[in-house]
Amino acid sequence: MMQQSDIIVAISTPAGVGGIAVIRLSGKGCIGLVDTVYRSPSGKKLIDRKANTIHFGTIVKDDAALDEVLVSVFHNPSSFTGEDSVEISCHGSIYIQQGILQLLLEKGARLATAGEFTQRAFLNGKMDLSQAESVADLIASTSAATHRLALNQMRGGFSNKLVELRTDLLNFASLIELELDFSEEDVEFANRDNLKNLANHIHEVIEKLADSFSLGNVVKTGIPVAIIGETNAGKSTLLNLLLREEKAIVSDIHGTTRDVIEDTINIDGLIFRLIDTAGIRDTDDVVESLGIERTFKKLEQANIVLWVIDAETEDERTIALSQKILPLTEGKKLILVFNKVDIIPAARKEHKEQLLSDLIPDRIFISAKYHQGTENLQDILVEAANIPEFGEQDVVVTNMRHYEALKNALAAITRVSDGMESGLSSDFLAQDIRECMHYLGEITGQISTDDILGNIFSKFCIGK
Amino acid sequence: MMQQSDIIVAISTPAGVGGIAVIRLSGKGCIGLVDTVYRSPSGKKLIDRKANTIHFGTIVKDDAALDEVLVSVFHNPSSFTGEDSVEISCHGSIYIQQGILQLLLEKGARLATAGEFTQRAFLNGKMDLSQAESVADLIASTSAATHRLALNQMRGGFSNKLVELRTDLLNFASLIELELDFSEEDVEFANRDNLKNLANHIHEVIEKLADSFSLGNVVKTGIPVAIIGETNAGKSTLLNLLLREEKAIVSDIHGTTRDVIEDTINIDGLIFRLIDTAGIRDTDDVVESLGIERTFKKLEQANIVLWVIDAETEDERTIALSQKILPLTEGKKLILVFNKVDIIPAARKEHKEQLLSDLIPDRIFISAKYHQGTENLQDILVEAANIPEFGEQDVVVTNMRHYEALKNALAAITRVSDGMESGLSSDFLAQDIRECMHYLGEITGQISTDDILGNIFSKFCIGK
Repeated sequence: MMQQSDIIVAISTPAGVGGIAVIRLSGKGCIGLVDTVYRSPSGKKLIDRKANTIHFGTIVKDDAALDEVLVSVFHNPSSFTGEDSVEISCHGSIYIQQGILQLLLEKGARLATAGEFTQRAFLNGKMDLSQAESVADLIASTSAATHRLALNQMRGGFSNKLVELRTDLLNFASLIELELDFSEEDVEFANRDNLKNLANHIHEVIEKLADSFSLGNVVKTGIPVAIIGETNAGKSTLLNLLLREEKAIVSDIHGTTRDVIEDTINIDGLIFRLIDTAGIRDTDDVVESLGIERTFKKLEQANIVLWVIDAETEDERTIALSQKILPLTEGKKLILVFNKVDIIPAARKEHKEQLLSDLIPDRIFISAKYHQGTENLQDILVEAANIPEFGEQDVVVTNMRHYEALKNALAAITRVSDGMESGLSSDFLAQDIRECMHYLGEITGQISTDDILGNIFSKFCIGK
Repeated sequence: MMQQSDIIVAISTPAGVGGIAVIRLSGKGCIGLVDTVYRSPSGKKLIDRKANTIHFGTIVKDDAALDEVLVSVFHNPSSFTGEDSVEISCHGSIYIQQGILQLLLEKGARLATAGEFTQRAFLNGKMDLSQAESVADLIASTSAATHRLALNQMRGGFSNKLVELRTDLLNFASLIELELDFSEEDVEFANRDNLKNLANHIHEVIEKLADSFSLGNVVKTGIPVAIIGETNAGKSTLLNLLLREEKAIVSDIHGTTRDVIEDTINIDGLIFRLIDTAGIRDTDDVVESLGIERTFKKLEQANIVLWVIDAETEDERTIALSQKILPLTEGKKLILVFNKVDIIPAARKEHKEQLLSDLIPDRIFISAKYHQGTENLQDILVEAANIPEFGEQDVVVTNMRHYEALKNALAAITRVSDGMESGLSSDFLAQDIRECMHYLGEITGQISTDDILGNIFSKFCIGK
């Protein structure tokens, strides 16, 4: 195993004060480096310890104790990075975390860059690139669905498949390139029927993966839900109601960053991204009209549209507005949300059950004021999202980089199939096969450049 | 080792998202409990693993993988708590942390209360009570000085001494109580000279410890510095300047909670607590006068007083004000801070060097505007604080509970000494000795009640 000769160090646990914190080092010589600041009660050195063992001791700076710690020792190649590694579990004060970190830097370690531990795991062959990328996704995952997809990717279902396909292609490419050497003799080392079958198979697999991106992307970034309706119909109330319910759900989970992920809610393990819009109203005012234009534009992003209607509104008005809205929501799930049902008579509510029901079958009655119907709404949203449950074997592409590479690979393999149909010469075929291999290899990292790696790992947190 | 039969679990790393997080369990059977959700690639159970070893594996819930983790196994009595313990190092997403925690709760563990791991370490004899308390202090420490004092206490210098004294007292108490059984025979089993020497020795040790509290408390809560001066002299500017310098120092330390610890700064490893006050001005207005009264009242809390003076102020005014201020700052370190030196002529500055110099020798010239002199001010503050450097052996009491107990022990041992002088009967002597022992035992936890323990450990974070 190739070990990096410089030793990296970082605090790997979340920033802040806690019971304990973990400082991680990796690289050739890192165990000996920690020995220079570590004192065991028995006097034993860490370098003499077995792999995967834990040792109590004191971290000392200038002969004064800095903390009492547990030190875990890992040996190349059986560590996360594939290199000799050490994890120091210290008391979780900022002062101690920073003190130990500074001390290790003074002793010759350098601060790890974002994702550098995972990058080393990739460079040392512990995981392929798509697996490495999934580590960041896994850490960022905030819902059951994103977690499942990231974990499946980390466990390699995706990349094993691609590596296999790429190996098959490589064999064909070699045979075809061999034909080129014997081109004057008009031999075929590569069986064309087999190649056709392979190309079709690869096409099928890649297409399925690429198609899964629209699902994967929605799961990862949140299912977009637009809330529209006339001014004062109760859009904001509905939004607040949904967000408040969510707040209650997540309130016992520390450190959630809801504040920055503006207006998303997690229902049954799915993330919904709520898109609030300006209220619709009939107007001759140019500025107002522009606002409404923008509202309709935002509809384009949405998969689900909640149309909030004040239950006291006259039917004619609703029907007239539906003629504007329906053309804009084609292919989307449109749901009527009748608000303020607490203040209308039962007969009127029954009537609203039928209104526009041939065109828009889905509807729900809520009273934002009395918190009625929001649970029902959550069920309807989950149903409307129509996201399948993901099992351990499901491979869904969630990464834009992978999607781009898959599209390119698909184009290349399509050219291979078409080329064989039209009797394209071997050298062109070989070129397209190589191109397809290139893009598949980009996903798994068999092909990679410093630029690609830099871009990928810069999105990690430091310490992972 | 007595193991608690219920298994506690908590996330021990800081709240939030990070590269990794650590979930900790302790209690009899906790290794087997983790085995119910852990799958090793080799199929081996954790319960069959050696103590202090680390194992890669998967945490599964309903047969689906939840995360790939490292699990550390500790055996009773060689663990932090003294019980069988497990630490699960997982990916640091909130979803995963909470998912594993929930899973372990479902499997029969219960959520640890604040400080419960440390409380078990205490109950299982791994540390005494004052050491346990120092764990919380260590985690909360934000400066070199508080860190050093907490670490010294955790390493037991303090409590070993007290246990020793208490044992000596116990021997004497037993002998004296033996005398009571033979009271009619008028024998002395306990040599009175030895007892006198012991009482004197104990008096000396306890007094020294109790006296150290005024220092320890100031180090722990911050050296109080009042900033006073006339309205518009530049008090707020000075405050902001000091805080800004500090901000620059701590800006690369994540997660510091400066925002809530209102107006403290860390200079050379010491914490200063800045007390801003209302501006002083000559006034007949009742409300204004009350404000000034309050300013002078706040002076009482301060060890150091910074009197900010606009360098353009006439001397007479300053001298007049000094007659009000000087009586209020007796016993405190008073420092003149001439502000706006950038706009006065050099001659005038030279003149200010002498102003009131017989009464108030310490002075400094700053230009808040041009950031001049603040470094100098920091040096002067550190010098004025007059805090000794703490070595590994220095024992300084920082805990109010300990201080109260020491004061009570001191009163009891004084009664023993006085009693012997005045020929007090053995049964009264014995009672005072027992009382002194009681208070010393409260510090180390040899004497403790559920109330005391509950109060102490409730101040810990969960997971420690």
